Amino acid sequence: MPVPKTPLLAADVIIELEAAERGIVLIERRYPPHGWALPGGFVDIGETVERAAVREAWEETSLAVTLRCLLGCYSDPGRDPRGHTVSLVFVATATGEPQARDDARGLRVVDPAAIGERLAFDHARIVDDYLRYRASGRSPAWFPRGVGPA
Amino acid sequence: MPVPKTPLLAADVIIELEAAERGIVLIERRYPPHGWALPGGFVDIGETVERAAVREAWEETSLAVTLRCLLGCYSDPGRDPRGHTVSLVFVATATGEPQARDDARGLRVVDPAAIGERLAFDHARIVDDYLRYRASGRSPAWFPRGVGPA
Repeated sequence: MPVPKTPLLAADVIIELEAAERGIVLIERRYPPHGWALPGGFVDIGETVERAAVREAWEETSLAVTLRCLLGCYSDPGRDPRGHTVSLVFVATATGEPQARDDARGLRVVDPAAIGERLAFDHARIVDDYLRYRASGRSPAWFPRGVGPA
Repeated sequence: MPVPKTPLLAADVIIELEAAERGIVLIERRYPPHGWALPGGFVDIGETVERAAVREAWEETSLAVTLRCLLGCYSDPGRDPRGHTVSLVFVATATGEPQARDDARGLRVVDPAAIGERLAFDHARIVDDYLRYRASGRSPAWFPRGVGPA
């Protein structure tokens, strides 16, 4: 069988900083698409998605994060201008002081309910889902009305 | 930037048949690796993961399923002998009579707590996770002890 072509796979992380009660970490992207975004990046062949999430968080923020749950799977074909990329988004916690590194040229700790920056990709929608999850305890990976046949 | 290489992406579905109170659908694979497995397959570029799950369930079982939740993300590099493949697994419901089609050469409705067949890939582990989810309401996408820095 020929190797099938499937979308690219990424992992992104909403990092709740224990020192900043309601704060999460945003990074300013060094490479296109520019702008502010959740930390994250592509999953390497040979690593689990969870390890990719922890690695990318470390590489971009210098934080050793602990994943708490999978918030959801974001797979709209138009969500990444570089091509169809599916992102698994995790909620994580971390202690310590974040510092921008690697693909991040800036970093900010923000109140997710009051983000001033316009976010890259569909990250504004992801943050909205995160806020709903935080209020309700239910992630968007639950479909109350179902996802049905086309 | 060169296109990154990431794992292949698949969607699999645990289909709860409304007519068979505790039954879920297994298919017998037509292509290697042979054996019994959950319905599913590769995600196409340009379709969402949810649409891929609904499409693959239809192609293999003739059931129009409704997705209820994302059970979890399975990404162990050794879980698929054909190469590193990450699977998003959904729980879905369906009415009607399943019929094997397409890549499925057989089909069975089984009690997930008493599966006689040895399942392909890591699908036995996925069914175990599903049984725990059914008992507790919590999917394995919640990490009670966290997934931490290596």
